[in-house]
Amino acid sequence: MNELKFFEMLKMINEKQYQKLKNELSEMNEVDIAELMDSLDQNTTLLIFRMLPKDLAVEVFAHFSPEHQSSIVNAVTDKELTNILDELYFDDMIDMIEEMPANLVNKILKNSNPEERKLINQFLKYPVDSAGSIMTIEYVNLNKDMTVKQAMAHIKETGLNKETVYTCYVTNKNWILEGIVTLRSLVTSEEYMKIEDLMEDDIIYVNTHDDQESVGNLFTKYGFMALPVVDNENRLTGIITFDDILDVIEQEATEDFQRMAALAPTEERYLDSSVFLLAKHRIPWLLILMIGATITGGIISKFEDVLSSVVALTAFIPMLMDTGGNSGNQSSTLIIRGLATGEITFKDKWKVLWKEFRISIISGIILASVNFLKNMFIDQVGLAVSITVSITLVFAVMLAKIIGGMLPLVAKKLKLDPAIMAGPLITTIVDAITLTLYFTVATLLLNL
Amino acid sequence: MNELKFFEMLKMINEKQYQKLKNELSEMNEVDIAELMDSLDQNTTLLIFRMLPKDLAVEVFAHFSPEHQSSIVNAVTDKELTNILDELYFDDMIDMIEEMPANLVNKILKNSNPEERKLINQFLKYPVDSAGSIMTIEYVNLNKDMTVKQAMAHIKETGLNKETVYTCYVTNKNWILEGIVTLRSLVTSEEYMKIEDLMEDDIIYVNTHDDQESVGNLFTKYGFMALPVVDNENRLTGIITFDDILDVIEQEATEDFQRMAALAPTEERYLDSSVFLLAKHRIPWLLILMIGATITGGIISKFEDVLSSVVALTAFIPMLMDTGGNSGNQSSTLIIRGLATGEITFKDKWKVLWKEFRISIISGIILASVNFLKNMFIDQVGLAVSITVSITLVFAVMLAKIIGGMLPLVAKKLKLDPAIMAGPLITTIVDAITLTLYFTVATLLLNL
Repeated sequence: MNELKFFEMLKMINEKQYQKLKNELSEMNEVDIAELMDSLDQNTTLLIFRMLPKDLAVEVFAHFSPEHQSSIVNAVTDKELTNILDELYFDDMIDMIEEMPANLVNKILKNSNPEERKLINQFLKYPVDSAGSIMTIEYVNLNKDMTVKQAMAHIKETGLNKETVYTCYVTNKNWILEGIVTLRSLVTSEEYMKIEDLMEDDIIYVNTHDDQESVGNLFTKYGFMALPVVDNENRLTGIITFDDILDVIEQEATEDFQRMAALAPTEERYLDSSVFLLAKHRIPWLLILMIGATITGGIISKFEDVLSSVVALTAFIPMLMDTGGNSGNQSSTLIIRGLATGEITFKDKWKVLWKEFRISIISGIILASVNFLKNMFIDQVGLAVSITVSITLVFAVMLAKIIGGMLPLVAKKLKLDPAIMAGPLITTIVDAITLTLYFTVATLLLNL
Repeated sequence: MNELKFFEMLKMINEKQYQKLKNELSEMNEVDIAELMDSLDQNTTLLIFRMLPKDLAVEVFAHFSPEHQSSIVNAVTDKELTNILDELYFDDMIDMIEEMPANLVNKILKNSNPEERKLINQFLKYPVDSAGSIMTIEYVNLNKDMTVKQAMAHIKETGLNKETVYTCYVTNKNWILEGIVTLRSLVTSEEYMKIEDLMEDDIIYVNTHDDQESVGNLFTKYGFMALPVVDNENRLTGIITFDDILDVIEQEATEDFQRMAALAPTEERYLDSSVFLLAKHRIPWLLILMIGATITGGIISKFEDVLSSVVALTAFIPMLMDTGGNSGNQSSTLIIRGLATGEITFKDKWKVLWKEFRISIISGIILASVNFLKNMFIDQVGLAVSITVSITLVFAVMLAKIIGGMLPLVAKKLKLDPAIMAGPLITTIVDAITLTLYFTVATLLLNL
């Protein structure tokens, strides 16, 4: 929705042109309506919500912000709530409940039937970020003995209540997944054909406890529209559809960006977050890294004699620190991203080490050569200092690249998030090593 | 495909158990077969390629690496090539041609009919990373006067050659897009109903020249399965499907990770890239930033007197530089990511500035307080130095956060990629400012 339309709608709301508004809304996409209503106060939201056609109202509800969902659940009658819950897809219901205060969760459970309550409780137990936590139970279930005609009749009858009808799942009486059949193959086949003959039985599936990031990588690799989720007994428990995966992929990348910038990851949007929340997510790592950097300061203090004998050495500290940090940051970023997309795994460790080793030699020598010429002819600091700085540079780049390449793999092995082994932490480590190296080389070469 | 299966297949190939291999392959997913074959030499690839059922062969072909596609196109007969080109989806064909040496492109054009040649040339002209460059022309086209029965018959006849049959496009005789109808609504409606009454006419579409990143954001926002692409005269020219968008989203995020780590972005996979290519992508920015850091060194040289009068000051240089860099990096990362996902736009500049300003005060004061206590009671460097370092810290954090928050927005306004305004560049800028501040405060407070 463009801004002009947005303001036009707001104007209608302010001027209470409800009939016109109602007509406009019924033509709009549910995501846009939710976006519009998220900017309104609670009473107006409720007023407009009640104005929407019932089907559309539930679709809009599914796209509300958690705060708006809570206020609607709080305000509506039990009967209205039951209507919403009946129509809401199960995965959207679980998403909503996860974000909701306890009193409203109780209101929801009170308005669900016992069977649904049991399912909700089961779904809430799946770990955050697991396949189970993002799957839905509204899929089309077929039987392998059905004909295409029977299957199509079944889809016609139940299709509107399913999250997707485009991939259908064939199970036996014990809910073991036997095959997958696409609606494309149903609509391009003859009516008398058997599902058994159309279904794909080499099925790619995930487990309820699989990590959502690896599920996202499967979607990207195979281009699937939906993936079946099975439990530990291989029974079909739900499906994950691509639209939920689009959110997961975006969210996982955002989390990695945040972790790599020494931020506590959050799903809250920047513009919607309070200053205190944003500050709270930034300060802990800044403090840790600040304390960490004092080690580097300690190294400088220890070598104060060296620095005061050859004052020119101090001027190269920032360049050495930055270049070491940048070199390590390049390597760690590539490895962290490769681990996230599934391109690199822990078993590639020797390949990574060997690659980074060779790259670091090339990079180190080129950077040091440029630096040497600059030291000699532009800075004119003399041969001894130029050599000291350049030798340090070669080794700093080499160490930085090897540390930057290996630490994310080590983190992965230790089941930590590799993204924390990024720029800021690598820089702190590399700084300390670089300066120790620098002063050691200086002591040796300058006879201090 | 798991590793065990992978090695089993390789064993069959080595032992020339071709019948068994053929049976196994015909059951496998095309992505897995392509992955397997990408690890084989050219002759074996061709041998197995010719062994595959014709439909599967083309699907596998579409997933080959560019090198493998080239070698197949080079090796097959003109007749085989025509078969491949006839079956290949148009977007896959364009992707392939874009990566191919000129002699093979000629072989392909020679084996296409004049109409196809014209289309290929038209598609090759769309800018890289534009909607036009990733769209396909194989969509289901319906007429609003059709009944559901007629539409289903049309889909049954043509559906197997379309990239998707799940979203169908209704156009008038001038190819102007009039509506969209989903296969779900067709299969859940009665046969006599008119397409006109089922179709959605409030259509969200993109233009051929729109950036692929913004197209990706539309998919994520609305959860679409496909989006229509229109030209400047609003004629439907193609569609983009979600599986291609999954690749775009991953690739755009990877490019941002790379740019933010001062790497030249590339689509090449890390493990497949040569050491020289990887080095080539790293060295230019390292050199630029190394030269940039000498400005900071120059500032130190200029204030050598201050440093030699109070030697203790040197030890805090790394901590000030790192904290400034980290603070700026946090802000720039959040803004760069917000711009990439479409959450933040240039018009939010004042909101960002005001937010970062307040956050920077909170962060700066907390960090400086901790630092002051540490300076006084652990480092015991005396009140004057402690105050100097702490005051510098407050202002360094404030400047870093404001610069880090604003530069990506400035880059966006200048139509540069905001991702270059990330950690490394911000650090270099903030370092210079922080040290100037440090020595100025020191000169004033310590009466130097």
